[in-house]
Amino acid sequence: MTASSFDVLTMGNAIVDVIAQVDEKFVVKHGLVKGSMNLIDEERAEYLYSDMGPAIEVSGGSAGNTAAGVASFGGKAAFFGKVKADQLGDIYRHDMRAQGVAFDSAAATYGPATARSFIFVTPDAERTMNTYLGACVNLTTADIDERIVSAAQVTYMEGYLFDRQEAKEAFRLAARIARKAGRLTSVTLSDSFCVERHRDDFLALIRNDIDIVFANESEIKSLYQTQNFDGAVKAIAQDCDIAVLTRSEKGCVIVSNGKTIAVPAHPVDEVVDVTGAGDLFAAGFLHGITNGRDYAAARNSAASRRRK
Amino acid sequence: MTASSFDVLTMGNAIVDVIAQVDEKFVVKHGLVKGSMNLIDEERAEYLYSDMGPAIEVSGGSAGNTAAGVASFGGKAAFFGKVKADQLGDIYRHDMRAQGVAFDSAAATYGPATARSFIFVTPDAERTMNTYLGACVNLTTADIDERIVSAAQVTYMEGYLFDRQEAKEAFRLAARIARKAGRLTSVTLSDSFCVERHRDDFLALIRNDIDIVFANESEIKSLYQTQNFDGAVKAIAQDCDIAVLTRSEKGCVIVSNGKTIAVPAHPVDEVVDVTGAGDLFAAGFLHGITNGRDYAAARNSAASRRRK
Repeated sequence: MTASSFDVLTMGNAIVDVIAQVDEKFVVKHGLVKGSMNLIDEERAEYLYSDMGPAIEVSGGSAGNTAAGVASFGGKAAFFGKVKADQLGDIYRHDMRAQGVAFDSAAATYGPATARSFIFVTPDAERTMNTYLGACVNLTTADIDERIVSAAQVTYMEGYLFDRQEAKEAFRLAARIARKAGRLTSVTLSDSFCVERHRDDFLALIRNDIDIVFANESEIKSLYQTQNFDGAVKAIAQDCDIAVLTRSEKGCVIVSNGKTIAVPAHPVDEVVDVTGAGDLFAAGFLHGITNGRDYAAARNSAASRRRK
Repeated sequence: MTASSFDVLTMGNAIVDVIAQVDEKFVVKHGLVKGSMNLIDEERAEYLYSDMGPAIEVSGGSAGNTAAGVASFGGKAAFFGKVKADQLGDIYRHDMRAQGVAFDSAAATYGPATARSFIFVTPDAERTMNTYLGACVNLTTADIDERIVSAAQVTYMEGYLFDRQEAKEAFRLAARIARKAGRLTSVTLSDSFCVERHRDDFLALIRNDIDIVFANESEIKSLYQTQNFDGAVKAIAQDCDIAVLTRSEKGCVIVSNGKTIAVPAHPVDEVVDVTGAGDLFAAGFLHGITNGRDYAAARNSAASRRRK
């Protein structure tokens, strides 16, 4: 194993967030499930956009947010993801690089435009995502730069990639390269509906290729098809080395080597918007473990960042 | 004079704001003058973008902000401005319409991309703008829809349009149409350097074609080349029916029919970002006078909105 050039390499859908405040009526009208991520086609994207209010555009994407978070803590971060060579793609690349993230995946020169996700934030601070994947469909095994994977202490991948067969293969290839190079592999389950769509594939990947699993309560319950959180904790303990399970205001639970560590949440006076909270939590944890901190401290590093 | 379909028509540069926080060192390094608006060419736009941090994109432009503000108060607003038929142009049109502003100016199908303005916000809450006008250079007299101008109680134009000859002509044409239809005309001086570049043209326009002039302290002083605010007040009183002069924390002064009304500022605990403050002030005033409120109340309507 050679020296690592990166603390964390993340890999996921390169998406520009289009964030708008909406009221509860909008959620009902469009049949949205609060807190979820929905994949939408171009037609529905156009329909929702025509019906939503003014928005702000911010580079996002789960794994992209996590890479930016790692860099913001002073860590060395890289990112694999696919934009198109268009205005939003240029903005995405600028924003990643401006935050100190190495992002050299080639832009697609044909096919659909750079991905966007309409993020509707309701007055209760919950976010509901509607993602048009656009150019992300062009992310394939050809985009896995072996030198970068081999040079990263941890390769972290978002479960959302499992929604496309080519990306799933790229995901598996990256995991194999990382393992071969003696590096750590990590995945976040991303969304309970995503888990439902790909449960068997997730379980096989975790059992064979993954060291560290991130999930929230509903995702881990969905993975093991149980309503019992403690049952899910026992199950994941059998399937991977480290599981990091977030539980919103109840803090998080870290399962490692048969031990379970519960870390309480930092109290927050008023929650304004939970968009990206899980992504930055993962960033804090990954930055912590790649910089020699123990698990509980790693989690606190993430929490203190999120409150800024 | 037929019934008005619009309370306020605004006309200006259609610009997507690219907003980033910067430190004082960045301001010094790039030789920026805080609080100013600088026109930049494509090469400098690329250079500044490559050196600035991650940003958020928000539809902006001075007169566009004012139209959106009028609509947000419940007023009927329309906007003339030029975008290109590209992703940022689509975003701009969406945002204007989603806020209830009638925006039907045709998009340019050739030439430079939709305009953007890099807005650097320093820790002292001041904003410094660097604007690449892009597609705005295509706004000409052909974009002045006579029916809309004739149907608006007030046609309001931003002084920034004076930086291009074709737009200046479009500006004058709109003023003439509005006057002929018995409507009010209004202009904001926009920026003291813009006034300096076009002082004589501004004075001629105000004396001949404008009813209501908006300016801040440095702009009105620049117009009359004086360091004495009271002297500038006396001068503008001779040149137009209504002058609305903003003075930051000192509130504003309204000059009308030989009378001067001083209205104090609402106190604000902490100023975070002054971007767009003047644009929304104008929106509040214009909404007030087109909905039967007196001058002092119109100004307070603007102030209460800005503090939200």
